[in-house]
Amino acid sequence: MTRKTFLRRLETHEGTARLEAFSDGVFAIAATLLAMEMKTPRNAHSAQEIIEALTRQWPIYVSYAMSFVYLGIYWSHHHRLYRFFRRTDHLFIKLNILFLLLVAALPFPTALLGEYLRVHDDRLRIATLVYTGMLCVTACAFVGLWIYAVHERRLVEHDLDRDFIVRTTRRYLIGPVAYAIAFLLALVDPVVSLVVSLIAAMFYLLPWELFRFADAVERADAS
Amino acid sequence: MTRKTFLRRLETHEGTARLEAFSDGVFAIAATLLAMEMKTPRNAHSAQEIIEALTRQWPIYVSYAMSFVYLGIYWSHHHRLYRFFRRTDHLFIKLNILFLLLVAALPFPTALLGEYLRVHDDRLRIATLVYTGMLCVTACAFVGLWIYAVHERRLVEHDLDRDFIVRTTRRYLIGPVAYAIAFLLALVDPVVSLVVSLIAAMFYLLPWELFRFADAVERADAS
Amino acid sequence: MTRKTFLRRLETHEGTARLEAFSDGVFAIAATLLAMEMKTPRNAHSAQEIIEALTRQWPIYVSYAMSFVYLGIYWSHHHRLYRFFRRTDHLFIKLNILFLLLVAALPFPTALLGEYLRVHDDRLRIATLVYTGMLCVTACAFVGLWIYAVHERRLVEHDLDRDFIVRTTRRYLIGPVAYAIAFLLALVDPVVSLVVSLIAAMFYLLPWELFRFADAVERADAS
Amino acid sequence: MTRKTFLRRLETHEGTARLEAFSDGVFAIAATLLAMEMKTPRNAHSAQEIIEALTRQWPIYVSYAMSFVYLGIYWSHHHRLYRFFRRTDHLFIKLNILFLLLVAALPFPTALLGEYLRVHDDRLRIATLVYTGMLCVTACAFVGLWIYAVHERRLVEHDLDRDFIVRTTRRYLIGPVAYAIAFLLALVDPVVSLVVSLIAAMFYLLPWELFRFADAVERADAS
Repeated sequence: MTRKTFLRRLETHEGTARLEAFSDGVFAIAATLLAMEMKTPRNAHSAQEIIEALTRQWPIYVSYAMSFVYLGIYWSHHHRLYRFFRRTDHLFIKLNILFLLLVAALPFPTALLGEYLRVHDDRLRIATLVYTGMLCVTACAFVGLWIYAVHERRLVEHDLDRDFIVRTTRRYLIGPVAYAIAFLLALVDPVVSLVVSLIAAMFYLLPWELFRFADAVERADAS
Repeated sequence: MTRKTFLRRLETHEGTARLEAFSDGVFAIAATLLAMEMKTPRNAHSAQEIIEALTRQWPIYVSYAMSFVYLGIYWSHHHRLYRFFRRTDHLFIKLNILFLLLVAALPFPTALLGEYLRVHDDRLRIATLVYTGMLCVTACAFVGLWIYAVHERRLVEHDLDRDFIVRTTRRYLIGPVAYAIAFLLALVDPVVSLVVSLIAAMFYLLPWELFRFADAVERADAS
Repeated sequence: MTRKTFLRRLETHEGTARLEAFSDGVFAIAATLLAMEMKTPRNAHSAQEIIEALTRQWPIYVSYAMSFVYLGIYWSHHHRLYRFFRRTDHLFIKLNILFLLLVAALPFPTALLGEYLRVHDDRLRIATLVYTGMLCVTACAFVGLWIYAVHERRLVEHDLDRDFIVRTTRRYLIGPVAYAIAFLLALVDPVVSLVVSLIAAMFYLLPWELFRFADAVERADAS
Repeated sequence: MTRKTFLRRLETHEGTARLEAFSDGVFAIAATLLAMEMKTPRNAHSAQEIIEALTRQWPIYVSYAMSFVYLGIYWSHHHRLYRFFRRTDHLFIKLNILFLLLVAALPFPTALLGEYLRVHDDRLRIATLVYTGMLCVTACAFVGLWIYAVHERRLVEHDLDRDFIVRTTRRYLIGPVAYAIAFLLALVDPVVSLVVSLIAAMFYLLPWELFRFADAVERADAS
């Protein structure tokens, strides 16, 4: 191995296997931990008491499911994009750690929202501000990761489709913008704010590849 | 890489490595977390006190073991089937996340059942209804994953044995049906219901491959 | 792929990657979770109060370190042996899940022992009985895994050194026997029992490969 | 496989995949677990009450972020170095377990520091002593791992750049020395001590590869 090859290898890390393994671990733990919050009603004296205890903790079920789905969506997009990455470098690894720090903290604002979803006063407003704020920051970190990686095709394949990069970037930018709007809307009406952030989240559940495939077929037919 | 190849690659994801890594993480955490519920009796003043404290929490031991075995069975079947998968697509990843959401929540109804296993009144009935209900929903999600993957051999090898697909599907359908029956039986008699769901679970512990091999040898001998 | 090849493939699973991933997950979580038991003394009014609170929970530090080392030893032997495995089958996967169930529960008896290590009466005897009992059962499960895998070279390379198998089996059998003796000794004297089980555990920390290499060099020199 | 080849294979383990998987698991869990300490304020009667409850637990946010970043740095350096490892041996695996034991315990002194960061008396001194002491011990274990692996190129590529080894060793030795100084400084002034340990930690966030590349280019230009 020549000194030049060695230096190039030091600078960038071929492959993303361990980065993905660490990320998968953080996602899996963050998604699963909230299940521990569901408490078994112990020493109940009647069936009625059990039913009441189980129903009383409904905000926990809601926040568990919301967190799991939310983390699941992030994980699937992380998974989706990393297929196109060929290497990592120092800053990208640090950005990915920052992103994971936010991801692992997501169950907390979600639980807060779940707790105050039933009231319709300033408590819901606070919960919605914290929640949409965190969504916005996390989405920014994710977009940051993507833009850093594709800028001048830094970490991706050198021939990655330009059109694909542009479209994907545009789509991922919708998230932070929508969450920022939702954050501001929370000051006016928390319910409207939550509907907007829900729609934004749902958008990331859609099978983009199929849309894109449809586009391409259309264009291919047109040409 | 031509545009057409790229589009095809976008649509489906070759390999299932990360999906399996994420799933393995969720399974491992869900199975292990319940061990944290076993509390060390602190500051006991006599051996008698320790023994009593240790025996008093027997429902925790039972639910730990039940959860671990149950999650272990699901993991081993997940492992068993994914060997035949060659790719994933958008909807499959989402279905897998939904399945994991249910899997990670399984320790909760199991702990509920463990707690009220010793009483024989309506409290056991409620616990059994929650437990068999969750088993049924989880089994449905698992069957759904399999059927989605093998329908027109969507995600499996294009020449995967038809007979194997039909038989496996039939065997996995037994689970949801048995748990649905157990759910209804819980209204009549919780103990009978639990025996039925136990038999259904045991069925998935069996070495199907060996049965199947026996079948095949028989048929080969016959022809 | 012929039907015969397919059936053979169904019967045994090539590779042990996912089994190892799932096991690594369980080991990592079980080893790490106990760290959560170390509680930060909150709202202390003086440095003295913090020092007292920190020292008061010394049994937690002891049991954390013991559990981590113990699980680390098991993990390293799991890792050591699985290098020689080429495939898994139905029963082996189930045995491995049973072994992991015991492994993930190890922090519990360890914490119990840590708590009563300072007293020298029947409370220590109970803790020692539970601890050595669990060690013995876990060691039996581990030996069972190994014997099942090497019996008629079921899951290992077909030409795996016979002498290596015999020696390794013998060495792994020392564990269950030593822990069983320690269990019985606990009835007489818990301290002697703990020393015996500690020596047995230390034995698995040794670099056997080097011994064996020394043996082999000796024999090679002799012949 | 000849007996000699087999013995050589026993002595050292080719590849570090499972060691990395186990380590990734421990890092991911240790980093994520602290997020569970953020408690949702339940049943608050006003928005004011929620804000107060959320702000009251700011030391938890600080220690979560500190732990996550700290563990992230260790993980990234673990990742960075293991790229150069080709095999493991008995003692290295044991040293790695010891290192992980310390890593998984890091959130505890971090939470202690977070709790007493606001006071400026002996309580902060104690917290700083525990914190810098743990940082020092952990950094020593990490350097130990590296030195063990590169000594006579024991576990790394046989032609790994000598200059790179020397420089990397020197850089990793800065950590333990800086933390030891910080530990002693804590006796005099905890704030100065924390600034020193913060600078040392920041040093490991830097993109060394780029520095090194710059060095090399310079030297190449000079020659």
